[in-house]
This record gives sequence, C-alpha cells and structure tokens, in this order.
Amino acid sequence: MKVLTFDVFGTVVDWRGTIIEEGAVLNRTKGLQVDWNKFALQWRAGYGPIMDRVRKGALPWMKLDDLHRLLLDDLLREFRIAGLTEDDKRHLNFVWHRLKPWEDVVPGLTRLRRKYILSTLSNGNVSLLVDMAKRAGLPWDLILSAELFHHFKTDPEVYLGAAKMLDCEPSEVMLVAAHPPDLKAAQACGLRTAFVPRPMEYGGEQKAGGADGSFDIVARDFVDLAAQLK
Amino acid sequence: MKVLTFDVFGTVVDWRGTIIEEGAVLNRTKGLQVDWNKFALQWRAGYGPIMDRVRKGALPWMKLDDLHRLLLDDLLREFRIAGLTEDDKRHLNFVWHRLKPWEDVVPGLTRLRRKYILSTLSNGNVSLLVDMAKRAGLPWDLILSAELFHHFKTDPEVYLGAAKMLDCEPSEVMLVAAHPPDLKAAQACGLRTAFVPRPMEYGGEQKAGGADGSFDIVARDFVDLAAQLK
Repeated sequence: MKVLTFDVFGTVVDWRGTIIEEGAVLNRTKGLQVDWNKFALQWRAGYGPIMDRVRKGALPWMKLDDLHRLLLDDLLREFRIAGLTEDDKRHLNFVWHRLKPWEDVVPGLTRLRRKYILSTLSNGNVSLLVDMAKRAGLPWDLILSAELFHHFKTDPEVYLGAAKMLDCEPSEVMLVAAHPPDLKAAQACGLRTAFVPRPMEYGGEQKAGGADGSFDIVARDFVDLAAQLK
Repeated sequence: MKVLTFDVFGTVVDWRGTIIEEGAVLNRTKGLQVDWNKFALQWRAGYGPIMDRVRKGALPWMKLDDLHRLLLDDLLREFRIAGLTEDDKRHLNFVWHRLKPWEDVVPGLTRLRRKYILSTLSNGNVSLLVDMAKRAGLPWDLILSAELFHHFKTDPEVYLGAAKMLDCEPSEVMLVAAHPPDLKAAQACGLRTAFVPRPMEYGGEQKAGGADGSFDIVARDFVDLAAQLK
C-alpha cells in the first residue's frame, strides 16, 4: 500500500461545528436568530440530492462551491434570512473552505505522512480543499478532487481515476472515510478501506450505519489509524 | 496575488545533474562507459519535439513518463547500451521522479509558502511530481500538471486551467520559471511572471535567452524571490 486517500467532509473536518460557530457570529453581527445547527444539517442534507441531479444531467457539471451556493440561496429563503449582501452570501458559502479539522487529524496525518502519500479524495472542489488545507495546516501531498474527474463520489470514476493518476493499482490505495457507502463504493473498485467513525458529525447521531466487518481497518481516529498502520 | 505556480524541470530541479549522478552509478554497476552528460542533454532535447507530436495528433495524449520512455528506448539504442533488464529501464526512466532541487529551492519555497499558495505547473505527470516532492521535501500546497488539462505547456489551456481551478483571475497567479518561452506564454494569458535563471541547467550555457525587461520580477534564486515578494 502506497497511498492513503481521505474523504474530507465529516471525516477530516467538522462541517456542522464550524457552521454553527460562524453562524453564531452572524447572528450577533446581523441581528439574526437562526438555528445554525438546523441550518447546517439542512445544507448538508441537500448535498446528496443535488449531486444526483448533476449525475442525471438535470444540472450541468459544476463544482461543489456552485452547488453549495444553489442550496444556500434556497435555505436563505426558507430560514427567512434577509439583509445579507452579495459579499456576505459569498463569504457564508465559503464557510466550507474554512471548516475545522477534528483534533486528532493534524497529529494523525503528520505521522501517516512519513510512510504514505496522503491525498484528499473529496467531492469538494480543488480551491476549496486547498484553502482548507492551508488554513488548517493539513499536510496533504496532493489534492485530488471530484473536480478532476467530472464525477462525484460514489461514482467509480473518482476512485479509479485517483489510482490511475497516482500510477497505482487500486489495491495500493486506501480510502479513509467516516461513511460506509463511500467505503463500499471504493471497495467495489478494488481499493482498501479504513473506517473512522465520527460520532459527532451529526451532533451525536451517527447517520450512515456502522462497521460490518468488511473494512480492512476500523480506527477510532487518525492517531489510532497511524498506530494500526505502523 | 494569491498563487505562485512553478515550472519544475530546470527551474526547481537539476535534471542534468541528477541524471549524471545516477548514470555514474549505472556505469559502475553495469560496466558501462556512457557519457551521461551527453545522454541527459539528448534526452531533454527530445522533449519539445515529442510533445509537439502529441500536440499535432501524431501521438495520442500520454503522460510524460510514457513520452520519456519512448525517448529512452531510442537513446538506449543510439548509445548502444545493452544488458538492461525491463526493471532497470523502468528505474532509469523514473529518474525524472527522483530529480534533486537546486539548493535554494527548499528554503525559498518554505518562506514563500507563508504568504502564497504554492503549486507546481509542470508538464510532468502527477505521480512524477508527487514522488519528487515527497523525496525532496518540496512544500507544495497542491500539484498541478499538464496531465490535468490534457495539454502541455506552452498551450494556453494549462495556464488558464490552473487559474480557473484555483478560482483566481489570471492576474492573481504568477508563474515562476527559468525559461522565457514558458513565461511569455503565461504572460499572454494574463499571468504574472517571475524569471529565475538557472545558468547551470545545461552545464553553464544558458540555452533559452535571458530577461528582456518584460517580466514582473527577475530573481537570482528562490530565496531572492521570497525577499522581493515580501
């Protein structure tokens, strides 16, 4: 095994927590009373369906920033949030560029990097992932994104495209993710898999099912993953 | 300006010096008497013409590793180098993954990285650039390659594709290179340019002309570039 690829939203960074945190500031500065936990959950809930619309050709290919913005515009109406300028909306949309990592992430990646090539493998666009890494100090060796393949996970083109671009057999690449459907899809392409549950991703209710014994590794967090891969 | 992109072969790494160094080992272990300086220069000289054949459709799109291998097979015949196994040839072809940086590169990039997003912008394929960075400790924020755009520099698609992928205006991106033709092509796309001559690239004869006053910056090396961009 040469390369570890990582799902990002939920696995590496805490989207819900960061949106709540930035939302609290927005409530204060703009005099809003938004429930940002609910807002974050709904924003994220729109993500699967809107990618499906791209997959089925109902929407043209676009990067995740643009899909996030379509969803955001709907949510602003739904939550009756008025008084945001275009700059405010753009800034809020880019909260996905500023998501904060779980606390084990940087120490875990730093250890893993000594032995493996580390890459993102995310539906987030390249500029989003670069901004996030720069800000949070995530020590990736490279940024791989659905944007490079014009396919979103869980389409096989993403997993196989990553292996090919890295000049690896699929079995030389591992996907690390908190979401069994992502791991299952990677597994079907011949990749190895590490399941790292993130029980706080949705605020305490793990949404997407648990380990069923079919993953190569189940780890508590990235530091544990590094220990298991020694 | 947000992003510095870097030409790699010649600008960041010393391809001629590394090939000579590895060639000396090969002469010893395989009992060869090859002039590796000449070999390196000829290998590199084949690079422009073979990319042109891809550009004109005489060869299908392929990554630089594969173009290097086509050139290598011809050179092995021309230099009458026999007795290499397929593994030996593959290893020799991958010397481009092991090229060593000029000595100012790591300190210069380390300083520049505090302020800018740093990316490769090379005709080398992604896996080549990742291997090189890992080995030499080059602190890129991301790896951008001709491979992502299915165009080689100096085609405009590479420079404009990089800016677009980074969500930048061309004028927010600078190309750093030792080769005026690369810089001129970037300039024509609206990028900023920094010329860093590498007088030893060809062993003391600078091949590709000098500064003509049209580049935004002319720097002695990457440490000087960092000082000028403060």
